[in-house]
Formats: sequence, structure tokens, C-alpha cells
Amino acid sequence: MADESFFKHETAIVESSTVGAGTRIWAFVHVLPGAVIGAACNICDQAFIENDVRIGDRVTIKCGVQVWDGITLEDDVFVGPNATFSNDPFPRSRQHPERYARTLVRRGASIGANATILPGLTIGERAMVGAGAVVTRDVPPMAIVAGNPARIVGYDGAGSLSAGALSTTPAEVGASPTRVAGVTLHRLPYVNDLRGNLSFGEVANQVPFEVKRYFLVYNVASKEIRGEHAHRSLHQFLICVHGRCHVVADDGTNRQEFVLDSPTIGIHLPPMVWGIQYKYTEDAVLLALASDRYDPASYIRDYSEFLELVKTSH
Amino acid sequence: MADESFFKHETAIVESSTVGAGTRIWAFVHVLPGAVIGAACNICDQAFIENDVRIGDRVTIKCGVQVWDGITLEDDVFVGPNATFSNDPFPRSRQHPERYARTLVRRGASIGANATILPGLTIGERAMVGAGAVVTRDVPPMAIVAGNPARIVGYDGAGSLSAGALSTTPAEVGASPTRVAGVTLHRLPYVNDLRGNLSFGEVANQVPFEVKRYFLVYNVASKEIRGEHAHRSLHQFLICVHGRCHVVADDGTNRQEFVLDSPTIGIHLPPMVWGIQYKYTEDAVLLALASDRYDPASYIRDYSEFLELVKTSH
Amino acid sequence: MADESFFKHETAIVESSTVGAGTRIWAFVHVLPGAVIGAACNICDQAFIENDVRIGDRVTIKCGVQVWDGITLEDDVFVGPNATFSNDPFPRSRQHPERYARTLVRRGASIGANATILPGLTIGERAMVGAGAVVTRDVPPMAIVAGNPARIVGYDGAGSLSAGALSTTPAEVGASPTRVAGVTLHRLPYVNDLRGNLSFGEVANQVPFEVKRYFLVYNVASKEIRGEHAHRSLHQFLICVHGRCHVVADDGTNRQEFVLDSPTIGIHLPPMVWGIQYKYTEDAVLLALASDRYDPASYIRDYSEFLELVKTSH
Amino acid sequence: MADESFFKHETAIVESSTVGAGTRIWAFVHVLPGAVIGAACNICDQAFIENDVRIGDRVTIKCGVQVWDGITLEDDVFVGPNATFSNDPFPRSRQHPERYARTLVRRGASIGANATILPGLTIGERAMVGAGAVVTRDVPPMAIVAGNPARIVGYDGAGSLSAGALSTTPAEVGASPTRVAGVTLHRLPYVNDLRGNLSFGEVANQVPFEVKRYFLVYNVASKEIRGEHAHRSLHQFLICVHGRCHVVADDGTNRQEFVLDSPTIGIHLPPMVWGIQYKYTEDAVLLALASDRYDPASYIRDYSEFLELVKTSH
Amino acid sequence: MADESFFKHETAIVESSTVGAGTRIWAFVHVLPGAVIGAACNICDQAFIENDVRIGDRVTIKCGVQVWDGITLEDDVFVGPNATFSNDPFPRSRQHPERYARTLVRRGASIGANATILPGLTIGERAMVGAGAVVTRDVPPMAIVAGNPARIVGYDGAGSLSAGALSTTPAEVGASPTRVAGVTLHRLPYVNDLRGNLSFGEVANQVPFEVKRYFLVYNVASKEIRGEHAHRSLHQFLICVHGRCHVVADDGTNRQEFVLDSPTIGIHLPPMVWGIQYKYTEDAVLLALASDRYDPASYIRDYSEFLELVKTSH
Amino acid sequence: MADESFFKHETAIVESSTVGAGTRIWAFVHVLPGAVIGAACNICDQAFIENDVRIGDRVTIKCGVQVWDGITLEDDVFVGPNATFSNDPFPRSRQHPERYARTLVRRGASIGANATILPGLTIGERAMVGAGAVVTRDVPPMAIVAGNPARIVGYDGAGSLSAGALSTTPAEVGASPTRVAGVTLHRLPYVNDLRGNLSFGEVANQVPFEVKRYFLVYNVASKEIRGEHAHRSLHQFLICVHGRCHVVADDGTNRQEFVLDSPTIGIHLPPMVWGIQYKYTEDAVLLALASDRYDPASYIRDYSEFLELVKTSH
Repeated sequence: MADESFFKHETAIVESSTVGAGTRIWAFVHVLPGAVIGAACNICDQAFIENDVRIGDRVTIKCGVQVWDGITLEDDVFVGPNATFSNDPFPRSRQHPERYARTLVRRGASIGANATILPGLTIGERAMVGAGAVVTRDVPPMAIVAGNPARIVGYDGAGSLSAGALSTTPAEVGASPTRVAGVTLHRLPYVNDLRGNLSFGEVANQVPFEVKRYFLVYNVASKEIRGEHAHRSLHQFLICVHGRCHVVADDGTNRQEFVLDSPTIGIHLPPMVWGIQYKYTEDAVLLALASDRYDPASYIRDYSEFLELVKTSH
Repeated sequence: MADESFFKHETAIVESSTVGAGTRIWAFVHVLPGAVIGAACNICDQAFIENDVRIGDRVTIKCGVQVWDGITLEDDVFVGPNATFSNDPFPRSRQHPERYARTLVRRGASIGANATILPGLTIGERAMVGAGAVVTRDVPPMAIVAGNPARIVGYDGAGSLSAGALSTTPAEVGASPTRVAGVTLHRLPYVNDLRGNLSFGEVANQVPFEVKRYFLVYNVASKEIRGEHAHRSLHQFLICVHGRCHVVADDGTNRQEFVLDSPTIGIHLPPMVWGIQYKYTEDAVLLALASDRYDPASYIRDYSEFLELVKTSH
Repeated sequence: MADESFFKHETAIVESSTVGAGTRIWAFVHVLPGAVIGAACNICDQAFIENDVRIGDRVTIKCGVQVWDGITLEDDVFVGPNATFSNDPFPRSRQHPERYARTLVRRGASIGANATILPGLTIGERAMVGAGAVVTRDVPPMAIVAGNPARIVGYDGAGSLSAGALSTTPAEVGASPTRVAGVTLHRLPYVNDLRGNLSFGEVANQVPFEVKRYFLVYNVASKEIRGEHAHRSLHQFLICVHGRCHVVADDGTNRQEFVLDSPTIGIHLPPMVWGIQYKYTEDAVLLALASDRYDPASYIRDYSEFLELVKTSH
Repeated sequence: MADESFFKHETAIVESSTVGAGTRIWAFVHVLPGAVIGAACNICDQAFIENDVRIGDRVTIKCGVQVWDGITLEDDVFVGPNATFSNDPFPRSRQHPERYARTLVRRGASIGANATILPGLTIGERAMVGAGAVVTRDVPPMAIVAGNPARIVGYDGAGSLSAGALSTTPAEVGASPTRVAGVTLHRLPYVNDLRGNLSFGEVANQVPFEVKRYFLVYNVASKEIRGEHAHRSLHQFLICVHGRCHVVADDGTNRQEFVLDSPTIGIHLPPMVWGIQYKYTEDAVLLALASDRYDPASYIRDYSEFLELVKTSH
Repeated sequence: MADESFFKHETAIVESSTVGAGTRIWAFVHVLPGAVIGAACNICDQAFIENDVRIGDRVTIKCGVQVWDGITLEDDVFVGPNATFSNDPFPRSRQHPERYARTLVRRGASIGANATILPGLTIGERAMVGAGAVVTRDVPPMAIVAGNPARIVGYDGAGSLSAGALSTTPAEVGASPTRVAGVTLHRLPYVNDLRGNLSFGEVANQVPFEVKRYFLVYNVASKEIRGEHAHRSLHQFLICVHGRCHVVADDGTNRQEFVLDSPTIGIHLPPMVWGIQYKYTEDAVLLALASDRYDPASYIRDYSEFLELVKTSH
Repeated sequence: MADESFFKHETAIVESSTVGAGTRIWAFVHVLPGAVIGAACNICDQAFIENDVRIGDRVTIKCGVQVWDGITLEDDVFVGPNATFSNDPFPRSRQHPERYARTLVRRGASIGANATILPGLTIGERAMVGAGAVVTRDVPPMAIVAGNPARIVGYDGAGSLSAGALSTTPAEVGASPTRVAGVTLHRLPYVNDLRGNLSFGEVANQVPFEVKRYFLVYNVASKEIRGEHAHRSLHQFLICVHGRCHVVADDGTNRQEFVLDSPTIGIHLPPMVWGIQYKYTEDAVLLALASDRYDPASYIRDYSEFLELVKTSH
């Protein structure tokens, strides 16, 4: 029998015995026996919760939402009205897959009104799925997605993209601090004569470390993200030498977005800064100068692990 | 207690006491106490009506629709099945905005099946939101919108856009009447020699008024509308001198859409005609010749006010 | 009274007396009196079935779906959660069309989660409407559609489109068999000198029949399909001489998709092969050489009829 | 017998008896009997002068130049070394046209080294044909041409084209004088909002005359000139509303070149100013507002006549 | 000693003893001993003729021309003033190639004023090199070339290229004769529906022969010619299915140029018609249907031989 | 009086007394008194040599060439027939500049037939001006130029540009030697996944020196050269990270041209190698990694000096 510490509207049908304290379940809701629902949730009219479902604490499920077998909603998730999940990538009537695709909505993420989530995806921590979006790929932590199919249009908390972002680029040659600890933005020297343009950087003057490696990123489909990790000890200096891309830097506390759109703008990402590169134009070429050779062990690829490491390093 | 002159299905839960006569409320509907609902409405199965809601007379709400706090539906509005409203632009679970964004659906507007309406928007009078559209901006009166994000694809009652519209352009140099009172379409004289093209107009011959002002509209994003108003006494003569745009003219009774796609087509908009310009191509430049200097007092910017003025002027 | 051989949840309201054996109707469902529902169906929570509705056998209707007057779902159809039908192309509150637009979902078709189906369309046999798609045009048999508005992105069972398809093209000049009976793919001879390229084919060597007719297909909007039929006795040899298009060939048992993207690739479609051409690039020109003159009686335009003919011809 | 007041190198063959005083004729030159040569000319080694030739005073003909039947060189013309004239547009051996094409090089013009002049052309007053140019069309007065085929690259004395020209455009809205009498350059007001740009001008404020006519010039091949004349009494106000073109204004004494490349730049050409428009980009649209209706009698199309009129009007 | 039947100006130096009767050699000309010069030539002032030179009858050499070792000018050639030949592709002072490049100017060709002919080229019969052209490649018979580097701009006698050529295309579906014997121009049937365009031809109706072979010509650099030959017995039917190209047809007496710029225009070239295809746009694809298999023996590749064959076949 | 050790044709007029031994001066040549002419020259018919002229030894001047005041031809220069110099950038009849523009043709350079050299230019050592070229800018040492205006099309001795050049790029990741001492061509490692391409290099593995500086060259007009110098001690590693450019490397003995057209091709230029970069595509971005900071003293900018230094360093 269900925990009586939760509220159930008289028309709701709650067959599960695992519902947390303080949770409210409203009119015409139907919860099947196997569902596990946390505390302090709010499950609105006409919602439907199947059996193989895990719902954390403080989750909001608005009207008209179904949560199917194979879906996990972590703590503090918000699911907007009529947002629709699915768990079979190629459904045919009365043909059931051996195992339903699993969907994971990570802690603090929100799914907008009437959004559609294709089967088998992960929606990252604090990500925001826009109203009406049709999500066909994993959504990274903090990313904001919109459209059909959904594309990343920004990052939560990374600030005003256009004016605000670039206004921090120093007008004069030199470096300037940013909102993110240790990250500096550099206006690089350049010479413009009739023969064309030449910009440059020298170790110690513009590039704040010895260069042991370079790499070039190019031919990135605009819908793709390249880079989304931190490094334990590596310094990087990034310049978009052709085209344009965006860089989000995040020290675990502050986050800021930068537009790299000129060979005369560089950004220094020191160790223990989470960096994301995205919104590559079709013709973008990103040059990265690195302080050390390639070492897979240097990468921190899980944002939660990164946050943990940042916390413990203080 | 609710007015017993309305119909309520036995499974519906109606907590409001303000429901108009003749309104029908169907199975599994839930109406919260604060909602105000007009007469002769039809509220279908599984609809949900929150508290801070105003619904006019003769409104249709199809199955699966929720009407949230902050939403007003004026008289004669139609809301299609599973169409979804929202009232929080950046929802997070259990974090409520100080004040919900307000949504206003004006008299006679229709919202198609499964459309999504973002928070804080106004849907204009008799506008038509297409099925599946995701509306991210205000919708002007009579506009038809579709897509994700939704764009204006036409105007209700403005007639066949392509063939029909242009067929009214006179093939020979000269003016021809249109369906809209006082509006004339002009084929302008031009000279084409090896050096290029030259088209022209002279006051009294082609341009039916003295020119006291010109203005140029350009760099209009294709999703934008420029102009959507009437003038009390000003004459305008419009020529799209590069690219293409559409003009809708409306005398309060008849409405017609014109494609301006050549420097040899001009349109004369006399006073007291509501004019809309939209569907600018990226490279469009619209030249307007005006019969008087700029005077903000000349503008009528509210369509209802325009209709009122037209009526009283007869 | 309804046939008691079906299951009805205690909260469901079933007013129809024509429900087939083995059909299950779940919580908060509402079925109006005129609906005709087949056997072994599964109609999930909060579904709504109007009167002028025909539903075949073994149909699945997931939660939150409404089936309106004028809609027919043939046997084995799947309708995903919150998928939304409509039956009035230009709805206004309390203005009913003389006759509702009719929607036909053919045998075995599936409609993905939260998809929107505009009024008056036919969804072909075994077609697949992707989750979140907004369907504005008829969907051909076996086609897979996605997006807003929905476009064809593939054909069910036609195999891997990119690598897989082309890997069957012979690297050397000559013909090679395909998975489809009688269909051969040809690498055509060509000469490349400083003046440009020349490719060619000769009857008996490359083109396996006498040529009595040629035709050219061009200016095809990318969203369009040209060709979707079989011929009783005609041979065709197809070459995409500019741009690129896709050809799906189907012998009634096997189906395969081919990318024609070079004047040096030809495909021979013998009689009694169902052929589809689609995904034309804007600049595509398809050259077809045919073994006989044009004869409308040669065409089989209905896929079911084709399947029938294939069966009887063995 | 030739006038003995001129110098003749001992190896020169001078068969004409009409050579002006002070003219020098150098080694290996050959002058046929019918040629008429003015005074103070300099005819260098290996030049060849045919019979039906008129050469004015103070003309320089450098080495290796032939002056064929049908060619007139007015006073002060310079012909560079090996510059080559022709007088038969489609020469075949021993097939002579009925009448040779006539070439006219107007007063003060210069023809650069090794340039080629096709038959039947006029090189305008003080024009400058660049070294190595192949001239296939008439060259306007003062124009500088270069290339194969030759294009106008500037106008003699019109000043620095790029920076210098535009630097006179006022940075603030308003008018500013130019080097040319009566001509003013205008920065026009404009409004820029999210919907696009709007620029405008009002009679008396920006446009210094009543507008009786407008005309639009477009689709000008970049090699073409549109406009090259003065008006007796007409005022014009020119705005390049799309693309870019150049305007040269000339009051008979001073000349200046302007780049019109924005709808916010206007130029006022008062009566009795010689105006040239050229270097149209492919997409240029030039809007001209005029103070009177079209009157062919208003045009002064001959630059010499213009200069005469300017002189007498002072 | 030279044949005294020719004229020599007193200042000319003629060291050759092989000069034909009636030839005139003018002032300051220098002819070296080994030169062979035909009858009735005209060699103008300051020309220079080296030793290993063959000049036919009725050749005109205008002033300032040098004819170097290795150059042959056939009968009736015209060389304009200052036109310049060369015979060493990579000249260095005092370094002589083992053998000079040979230049051949075929019967009746003309070289315009100040043109430059690079070493080792053949200028075809009756070709016309425009004034100032720099010829870097062989020039085909009758071709007209201009520019630096020179490109083919037309064919002598092929008529007006633009209007004239196309005006012969029948406006209605069907065939029409041309100025060239046996050549017909065809307007092909086509069907235009919403899905795109389809044009076609059937043997006997549109295509006047059985098709035994097709070939496709594409990726032709615009400066190139593809096809320049006649066939002894082959019929061809040409359609430019994408882009545009020009076809010149020549029956030995009449010549006409056609612009193929639509899949609905075909041209039938019967046997014994000299055909040239050129001016391919970058995206042009030419489809040829042929009445027989490929047979190298069918080709007549020498225009003189073609003329001979035409003559004898009558 | 002239040195009688040279040959003079009886019709030549030689007024200079400074002509070197073994020089031959042919018919109708005119040499003015001030000219200084070296030994073993060959000055052909109709040439004209003014006063302020310096001509070195072993120079060839073909027919119809004039050498004006202000022109210097160093040893071993070749000037083709009718090639035309000029010495006044803006000639007007009888208006002489204060001082004539000086033209310098460096040792061993060749000027093709009928080329035009604008005033004031330097033609570098062993450069080659193509026939008919119109030279409007300085020509670097060894460069081959052609066209109107003339552009660099190659470098003398740098080998076959297309196939030959790239064939030396190793197909496998790694370095390979070239014909130029010390210069290596590198195929760089890269990773290609669905997200785009990544290529890279590490110090010691791919980049054979420590990186102390990078620079980027971009926005180079295609007619321009960037780089044309050697370094005394600097190493450079060049990668064209977008677009394409050509690099010529020259060790003083051997010269080779390389096409950099991929981020996966690098070239190592060690000290004392003369490097030229040219033929930049409009979108080219060249990344240079350098072994030291910028030091102007490191540059050797004069090719003669470079050759001298190479010689002495052996």
C-alpha cells in the first residue's frame, strides 16, 4: 500500500506503493504498480506513470505527460505539459522490442511544454529542452536546445552571447580577465599591409606557456560539439583562425560564453576549466596550442566528476 | 456554485462558479475554482483549466488542452486538440516566477492541433496558428503562421498569393484597380537598353500625389514584418526596387495580397487603408514615396481602432 | 451494448457497441457511440474516440490520442502517445465544415509520439511517421518521414543508405547484381581528358535492351518524389547525369536503396520491379532510357496491386 | 613640297607637303603624301603615317606607331611606343572594306605604350589609355582605361577614389560641401531596429528641391556607364539604395569622385554640373529624385559644349 | 638574285632571291636570304622576314611585323600591324633551342593588329585572331578568338549568336529546318507538374533514328571545345540536359550557330555535317544519342578533308 | 667614336661611342649618343636605344624594341620582339616629368614577345615575362608572369606544379625528403570522426623544433606574394590550415614547388633556405610555427645576398 504521507486526488489511480512523502498526485492521474516516485513531487492531472520508472525527489510532471517503462527522471527534473517521451525507436503495433530503450533525464533538467524526446537519450544536468523541441540526440549538461530537430542554442548561465560576450575582448593588444577563474581573453598583435594580414603570438608574451603540441579542428558539422571536457594539468590556447566558433568556459562556479571570430582573438583555458566548443561555422578552423603532448589520462569527461574535483581542490 | 445552465459531464470536475450559460464541459475535464468561463463554450474531454484564467464566449477547447494561470482567451477562440500553452519561459522544478507570463489570445483567433505557444505572447485577432506550429513571437491580426519556429505564411482572406495576386498587375504601363477600395496597382514605364534598365515615375502621371518624403526599408530579416498600420491622411506609393516583398492591403472589408518583385510595379496606398509588408527577401529594398512629412500622429497602429474608424467614417 | 469479450477499465466510458474481441480499453478513455473498433486492439489511458471512426484489428492507440470523426485506422496501425489528428483545415470556433476532411492510415503504418497529422491525408502502408513530425502531405507506402514539415528520410527496409548502398556499385566497368531480383547496377565506361569527361553506353554492351524512348526528369523540388510505380513489361535504364538522386527498387520481397550521383553509374530496372526516385538535389537531371514507347497501361501505380501481381506471377 | 620649317631626319621619308612648323620627324619615319600634320609635333623613329590622316598641333607619336587611313589625332594627343591602331574590323588579305572605319582621338588624349585601338572608336578628350590596354569601345572624356578588353578604372583628376572620396561624407546626419561647385554630399537619417533598417529624406530638410520625378537605374553591366551629361536646369538627388556605384561630378573646373555604397548617402547634383555614374556592382540600384519631369532638351551630352556653356555662364 | 617582277622600295633590303611576281615590299623592310615569299603579297614598312620562313601567295604583312625562323604563312593570310610572333617558348639571351618551335598559319587566316602568337601553334583555316589577343593555344578553323589569353568568341559566318540562333527553335513541339542542309532543330515535348519537369523523345516521333548508343559530355572547361568533326554515316541527336552549350553546324557551304540551353531543345546532326560544340557552361551536360556504335573510322577530323568529301559527294 | 670591334649594319645609325666588343647592331637600328652598351650583345632590326640607358653584356634585343631613358638592362637579359617599355606613368604630349621613372631588368631576366612593361618597375633576376604580358608590378627573381595585368604563374626551375609537386607528399603519416636540401614534407596524423576532423603535431614527433612563436597569414589577395626571403637561423613549419597556397623552397642550387592544400600537410623550412609563398586562395590561412621569436636581423631579403651567403657557407 502507498505511503499515506502523500496527497492523492480522489479521481487519481495510484497502484504503486512507493511514493515519497509530500508528493501530490492530481486528478485523473494513473500510476502503475511498479513505479518508484520520490518525495515532494508534483504530478498533475491526466499524467500516466508506467511500471519500470524511477522518479527522484522534487520532480514536477505537468498535465498530459506519460512516463514510460525505461525512463528515469532524477531529482528536481521538470517535465512541461504534454511533453512526450517514447521508448521504441521503430514502433509497430503489437511488436515489442526485446528491451525498451532507456531514457535518462539528469538532475535539474527541464523539458519544455509539448517537447518530444526520442527513445534512448540522455538529457544532461540542468539542461533545458525548449517548448515544442523534438530531441533526437543526447543533450549535454546545461545546454539549451530548441527546434525540430533540436539544436543547441546556448548554455544556461553562460551570459549574453552577442554583445556581452565580445565586449570583454580587449580592444587593445593584450590580455584581459573573464568571469571564469584563470581564463583570459587575448587580443593578439597583427600587421595589416597591402599583401594581406599577419597575426602572431610569442611564447611568454601572448601565449602563456611553452607549446608542445598543436591541433586543428575543422569540417565540424554545425550541429556538432567538439570538446566538452576539462584537463587536469594541460593549458590550452585557442584561436579560431578561419570562420567562427563559440567557446563556453566554466570553472564550476561561473560560466561564460565567448565568440571566437578572428585570428586576432585567443583564449587561454588553464587546467581545471570545463570547456565546450560549439556553433562552428561550416568553414571554421580552430587552432589549439597545448602545453603538453596528448595524454588521454589528462581528460575529465564527466561534468559531475569535474564538479567534484573542483570542490575537493579548494 | 456553478451556474446550472451549463452542461457538465458526470466525470468532469468543475470547481469554478463562473461558467456561462450553454457552455458544455465534457468527460474528465477539470476546472479550478478561480477560472472565469463565458457562455456557449465547448470544453472537451481531458481539458484542464487553472485558476487565473479568463475565457470568453463561444470558445472551443478541444481534448487534452490545459489553460494555465495567466492566460486569457477572448470570444470565439478555437484551441485545437493537444495544443499546449506555457507560462514560464525558463521553468525549473519547484522554482516559480514571481509572476507568470501572460498570454492573450485575441477575438476569433484559432490555434491548430498540437501547436505550442511560448509564454508571454499575444495571438492577434482572427490569426490562425497552424497545426504543430511552435509559436515564439507575437502573431499579428489575421496572420497565418506555421513551422517550428512559426513564421507567417499568409494572411486570412488575402486571397491566392501567387497567380491570383499578380494577375491583377496591368501588363501594360498604367494603373489598375484592386479588390481593396482606393488601392491601385501600377505597371511603371521603363527603358531597357544595352547599358541596363531604367524605370521611372512622374508626379501626376504615375505617382498620384506630390512627393514630400521618401523612405527606404532594407535589411529586413525574412521573418519580420515592417509596416502594419494605416494612415489617417497620408498617401504612399511603394516600389520594391530590389528583391521582393509582399504587401497586404485591407480597407476594413476587403483584403488582398500583392507581390512586389520588380522596380516596374508600384502600389498606391491611400489614407485609411491598413497595410502590411512582409516576406521580404534578404536583399529586398522597399522604396516608399509619401505625400507628407513624417508625423507620428498620422499612424493608426491598432487594427481594432482602425476598424472602428472605418466604420464611423462611412 | 458493447461486446463483453473486450476489456474495459472501470474508469473508461465506452458508449459504442461495436468493439472487437480481445480489445483492451484503459483508464479514462472515452469512446463515443458511433465508433467501430476491431479486435485485439489496445487503447491506452486518456484516449478519446469520436463517432465517425473506423479502427481495424490489432491497432495500438497510446495515451493522450484523440481519433476524430472522419478518421480510419486500418489493421495493425500504431499511434504513439499524444500523437494528434485534426479534421478541419481552417478551424474557427463553432464554424463546422460541411464535411470533415477524411484521414486514412493504411495497414501496418506507425505514427510516432507527439506527431501531428494535418487534415485529409493518407498515410501509406507500413509508412513510419517519426516522433514529433508534422505531416502536411500524403506519406507513400513504406516511407519514413520526419521534421516540421515532415520530409521523407528513407524507406523501411531499404537498407543502409550511404556506404552500404554504394558499396554495391562495381568499382570496375561492368554490371553487378543487387539484392533485388533482376535489378543490376552498372559502372559505365568513361574517358577523361583535358577537354572534359565523356561517359557512354552502347546497346547490348551496357544498356541491356533496345532504346525506343528517353526521358529526362529535372527541376524536382527536393521534397518531391518522382516515380513510384512498377511497369508490366517495360525496361528502364536510369542515369543521374547531373546532381544526385536516390532510387529504391523493390521486387515485392527485397528492397534496396541506391544513390545515383555520377554519370558513370546506371541502374537497370526490369519489368515488375517497384521503383521509387527521390531525394533529388536541386540540380539533379535523371536520364531514363526505356525499351518501349510511352504507354499508360504499362504502369502499376498501386503498391498493393503490385504485391498481388508479383505473388500471382510466381 | 613640304614646309621647310620642320625638322626631318636624313633617313626619314616625308612625301607629304603639309607638315606644320616646328614639327620634328625622326629616323626611318615614312609619311605618305596625303597626310596632314600640324605644328610642333614630334614623330619618332620608325613611325608610319598613311594618307587619309589628320594630325593636329603638338602631337607626340612615339616609335613604332602607324597612323592609318581614317585616323584623326586632334591637338596635344600623345601616342605611346608601339601603340597600334587598326581600321578594318574583320581584315582579310586583299579584301578592302568599302570605307575604312574612322578613329578619332580627341584633344589632349593619351594612348599608352603598346596599347591596341580597335577600329572605329572615339577616344574622348584628355582620356588616358593605359599601357598594353586593348580598347574595344569608345572611351569617354577624361576616363582612364586599362586591361584586355579595356575597362574604365578611374577619371583623370577626380582624386583618390577610396579613402579620399568618402572622407568627405559627413559622419553626422547632414550635408557637406565638396570640391565641386554646388555639389553637396548628404548623410541621411536612418533608424535601425530589430525589424531592419529604414532611412529617409524629406523635402527641404534632406532633399533640397521639390520632387517631380524619380527614376531607378539597375541591371547595369559593370563595364557600363549610365549617365554622362549635365542638365541645364534640373536638380538631381542620387542614392544608391542597393549595391554600390561611383559618381564623378565636374563643374568644368574641379572634378571629384564619390562612392555611393549605402542608402544613407545622398548626393545633390545641381544644374550645370557634369555627372558620370559608373562602376555599378552587379546588384546596384540607383535611385534618382529629380526636380522636374523628363525633358530631353534639358540634357547637355557633349562635354565640349558643356565646358563652353560653363565658361559663358560666368 | 630576286625575281625583278616584284616591287621593292628603295630603302628595303631584300636578300632573298625567291619572291613571287607582283609582290610589293615597302620601305625599311628587311628580308633575309633564306625566305621564300609567294606572289602578289604586300609587305609593309619596317617588316622583317627571317630565313626559315615560307610565305604563300596573296599574303598581307602590315607594318612592324617580324616573321621568324620556323614560321609558315599559307596563301591569303593577313597579319595586322605590330602583330608579333615568337619561336622560343622559354627564351634566354644567347641560349638557342636546338630547333625553333614551328608556327603554321593556315590558308585565309587573319591575325589582328598587335596580337601576340606564342610559339609552336597552328592558326586554322580562315580563323580570325582579334586585335590585341594573346594566343596561347591552337586556333581551330574559322574560329574567332580574342583576349589575353585568347578564347574563342565565335565562328566566322555562323551568324548572329543570340537572338538569331534561337529564333529558329520552333515555339511549338516539333522540328524545323535550319540554314544547314539536313540539320533540324527540335522543340521536344515536356510535362510540367508540381513534382518537377519531364521532357522526352521517342524514336520515330522526335528522334529520327534508332538509338544504338548514348554518350554524355560534362565537366568541360569553358575554354574548351568538345567535338569538331563530321561523321561519314552516323546520325546524332544532341540535347543539353543541364547548363548550356553552343553548337555550330556546317554543311561545307552554310554554317549556323545554335544555343542549346534547355532539355526541351534537340538538334539532329545527320552524316556529313561538320559539328562543333563549345561555350559549355561549367555545369553543362550534353546528351548525345547516336545511330550506331562507336567507330573511330566514322570520324572526319580534318576540315579540309571534310570540304573535299562534301565536294566530291555532290 | 664607337669601338670598331662591334658590328654595325650599314643602315644602322650608332651615335654612341660606348659599345662593347662583339656586339652586333642590325639594320635600321638607331642608338643615341649617350647609350652605354656592353659586349657580345645582339641588337636586332628597327631597335631604338635612347641616351640615358645602360645595357650589360650578352644582352639580346629583338626587333622593334625601344629602350628609353631611365632603363637599365643587366647582363644576359633577353628582350623579345616588339616588347615595349615606358618611362612616364601618365604621359601627356609635350609634358615631361621632372625625372623619368627608372626601369631595372636584372641579370638573366627575359621579356617575352610583345610584352608591355609599365614605368618604374624592377624585373628580378632570371625572371620570365610571358609573351603579351602587361607588367604592372615588380617581378620577383625567377618568377614567371603572364596575362594582362601580369600575374605570377610559376617559378623558373621549380618543377611540375601539379602532379609532380604533390607526389612527394608521403601517403602515410611521416616525413619525406625533397629535392631541396634540408626541406622535408610531412603527412600529419589526423582523426576523422562524425564530429569533424582533427589533425595535430607534437614537438619532436612531427614538428622538428621547439615552438617559440606562431603566426597566421590570411586575407592575402591572390595576386600577392607573402614571404620571399631566407632566415639565418630560424626554423619554420608551415601548414595551410584552410584553403590552399603554394610554397617554393630553394637552397641556392635546387628549387621545388609544393602545394599546401590540407591541414594534414606540413613543410619544414630550415635556416638558409629561400622560401616563397604565393597563389593563396582567397580563403587561405597559413599557420607558421617558428623556432624563435621575431627578429628582423634574421631575415635575408635579397636573393643575390642569399646566393652569396650559401656559397660562402660551404
